[in-house]
Amino acid sequence: MARNTQVAADHNAPPVTRILAEFIVNHPSRGWSDAVDHEAHRTLMNWVGCAVGAAHHETAQAALAAVQLLQPAAQASILGRGEKVDMASAALINGISSHTFDFDDTHLKTIIHPAGPVASAVLALAEHTGASGRALIDALVLGIDVSCRVGNAMYPDHYDRGWHITGSTGTLGAAAACARLLKLDAQQTAMALGIAASQPIGVREQFGTMTKPFHPGAAARAGLMAALLAQQGFTASPRALEAPRGMMQTISTKNDWSEITSELGSRFEISFNAYKPFACGIVIHPSIDACAQLREQGVRPEQIERIELKVHSLVLELTGKKEPADGLQAKFSVYHGCAAGLTFGRAAEEEFADDIVNRTDMVALRRKVVATVDDAIAEASADVTAVLSDGRRVHVFVEHAIGSLARPMSDAQLEAKFHGMADQVLGAERCSALIAACWGVGSAVDVRALAEQGRD
Amino acid sequence: MARNTQVAADHNAPPVTRILAEFIVNHPSRGWSDAVDHEAHRTLMNWVGCAVGAAHHETAQAALAAVQLLQPAAQASILGRGEKVDMASAALINGISSHTFDFDDTHLKTIIHPAGPVASAVLALAEHTGASGRALIDALVLGIDVSCRVGNAMYPDHYDRGWHITGSTGTLGAAAACARLLKLDAQQTAMALGIAASQPIGVREQFGTMTKPFHPGAAARAGLMAALLAQQGFTASPRALEAPRGMMQTISTKNDWSEITSELGSRFEISFNAYKPFACGIVIHPSIDACAQLREQGVRPEQIERIELKVHSLVLELTGKKEPADGLQAKFSVYHGCAAGLTFGRAAEEEFADDIVNRTDMVALRRKVVATVDDAIAEASADVTAVLSDGRRVHVFVEHAIGSLARPMSDAQLEAKFHGMADQVLGAERCSALIAACWGVGSAVDVRALAEQGRD
Repeated sequence: MARNTQVAADHNAPPVTRILAEFIVNHPSRGWSDAVDHEAHRTLMNWVGCAVGAAHHETAQAALAAVQLLQPAAQASILGRGEKVDMASAALINGISSHTFDFDDTHLKTIIHPAGPVASAVLALAEHTGASGRALIDALVLGIDVSCRVGNAMYPDHYDRGWHITGSTGTLGAAAACARLLKLDAQQTAMALGIAASQPIGVREQFGTMTKPFHPGAAARAGLMAALLAQQGFTASPRALEAPRGMMQTISTKNDWSEITSELGSRFEISFNAYKPFACGIVIHPSIDACAQLREQGVRPEQIERIELKVHSLVLELTGKKEPADGLQAKFSVYHGCAAGLTFGRAAEEEFADDIVNRTDMVALRRKVVATVDDAIAEASADVTAVLSDGRRVHVFVEHAIGSLARPMSDAQLEAKFHGMADQVLGAERCSALIAACWGVGSAVDVRALAEQGRD
Repeated sequence: MARNTQVAADHNAPPVTRILAEFIVNHPSRGWSDAVDHEAHRTLMNWVGCAVGAAHHETAQAALAAVQLLQPAAQASILGRGEKVDMASAALINGISSHTFDFDDTHLKTIIHPAGPVASAVLALAEHTGASGRALIDALVLGIDVSCRVGNAMYPDHYDRGWHITGSTGTLGAAAACARLLKLDAQQTAMALGIAASQPIGVREQFGTMTKPFHPGAAARAGLMAALLAQQGFTASPRALEAPRGMMQTISTKNDWSEITSELGSRFEISFNAYKPFACGIVIHPSIDACAQLREQGVRPEQIERIELKVHSLVLELTGKKEPADGLQAKFSVYHGCAAGLTFGRAAEEEFADDIVNRTDMVALRRKVVATVDDAIAEASADVTAVLSDGRRVHVFVEHAIGSLARPMSDAQLEAKFHGMADQVLGAERCSALIAACWGVGSAVDVRALAEQGRD
């Protein structure tokens, strides 16, 4: 029974559930610039590579084993594997795989990883229903816009409170994208968003466990089912997002509604999506990038006497582990990052493997890194000087690391990243074909070919 | 990337995830009084009646239609229907049906409806795995203990904030019960609770829509899957409930940990479970009860000149609708409640049907109710005087309504309630057999017989 409550409520929120529903339904196909459309293809390609790459990881393995207990129908593909499962389970498993390496895309303003929930849901639904590639890309752009805009409105309070914002907003994004793909009307789309609004997923305490990548997967599944339920006449509150006891006010004390409504249909949040070049926390990226640039300039590990690294204090606070014992710890070691940059010119998942981390030359090289704090250097920058055994000093300053919005990865770099993750699963040749299928999906009459090529 | 946060955190919480996991695993079968065990059977029976009764409601219909799009395997029964679906979907649909009439059980301290999430999950899992009835009852008692104890710890802040506490705690209860049924060890059970902890479901804005009963159904499904995932080796944080960025601190600012740990294993929250005799909000119950008692004393509607009703102000504030237009509005009309009590001696779902609400005699009778506020009368009480056309006055004072903890419904009354809901679906004879199966389930070697009897 209702009663008076002590929790503050905003009774004057604009009707964002309805506003978003009408946007999802009415925005024209490809109603954005070529740059936005290309970014959608990059987002999709990067997501496919992540999902294929981790398809046989123990995380995906365990999740699939649980799903198989339900004896699912063979409706949709699991990227990088031979099995097919029902479309909702495919959304779950692909969402889990794609976030397992923590190497997927990042909407930097909110640190949402937007593709996991949205792409996982739409690919499974599009494959089962035989949708066109254009419909898939349209749904991806619009779904990501919904989750990131809701994220913008609630960030940072919502994240600080403990929510893994990727999963909590991802259910809405997935529901929006699937509603679009199913061609629901505005009323049904509002219901889909409403059903999704009761299922925010994920708390930050799970970081470091399999349940972290479970979040985008579960969000994808829940969003897809929300759209199917709405299609079948299931109802929810038409004010489920914004009402005083709706989703957003329940899970965040900060809600800037204008983040949802402002420039809706002209500014697309997918434009602000970034892709990690290195398989570790983003504050190490400038240091790795600088060391990789030293390598490009001809500096070799065996010449190194000392590496002088100057970074913002936050970098050492978060990633100051001097002697990482394994791959997971190495992801929090700027010392290992520098050694990897100098030795390999890269730091993908392989360069964080336990045996690489414990290799004698890597241990020796990272001990030559002398890190000092200099708060005049921005968090996003790094200043590195290699002091060589012949006394020479080679200096590199990185203002913005590769993979940042200021220096986005090129298409070729994204392709190389894809191969780095996925070749071990599908082989280089099939990966090249799959990459080509991703670039061309916007004009494909049916996405089934892409899904089929992504299977093992 | 982590950063400093403004949100307060309790770093000294006891390890309740582990404590609950060990309790679930180690507590002996039937390790409680006969009264507790009997209450578990009453909870199960009431829940079965609710689920059967609403099995063909448009809410269940729409949900099942969406699930059928996944082409589910025929693993488990949907109560009151002929179809079978996979066990996770059966948990979803039975959970939805059982809460559709809003007529299920209530843990009064937290207003959690505990059976929906927990019983829906364990019946589906027990049916598919061929578990014994004793294992089912054990899992039900322990699962309900987990969800209600977590609810006690967070209530009222968590509820006031906007959460539908039935769904948000129900995922944990369902996971706990399924972990017990699957005989997971303490480590796996902690993982099951952890996976569930990332999936609190339901906001209060959904009240009045199909998404309200969706909450216990989705919680049942998520809890069942969490247990299956843990069984297959999926991991979560072992401190997922209590950590600063774990579930409970993320979704509630009040967390009284002692509510979880105190008298664990000796006090069972299912003891405090109550069953609604009337299909409407609980504040109307004393007035309906009083009018039904007038009827038992021989008072007939045609004799009535006037009904003088004295109640606490809250009753009229919440349920003061004088001229309800339909069944849904009548649930918020103490006037209709009084008329139903006098006319039928009951107020189940049928007495809130649109045609009953609009019947001429019912309209006339409720207009004879003169309600006045008297805050000397407790919220849980009602004072009713029937003034008859011959001038006689018949007075009834109800301190605690039937269905409250002070005056629980008898087993016979619960059986009558079951028939009132479910006879229309399965017929009286099959309902009697199903009721008998519920009473006897604790000693049944296999719950499949009960599930089979509940099918249409």
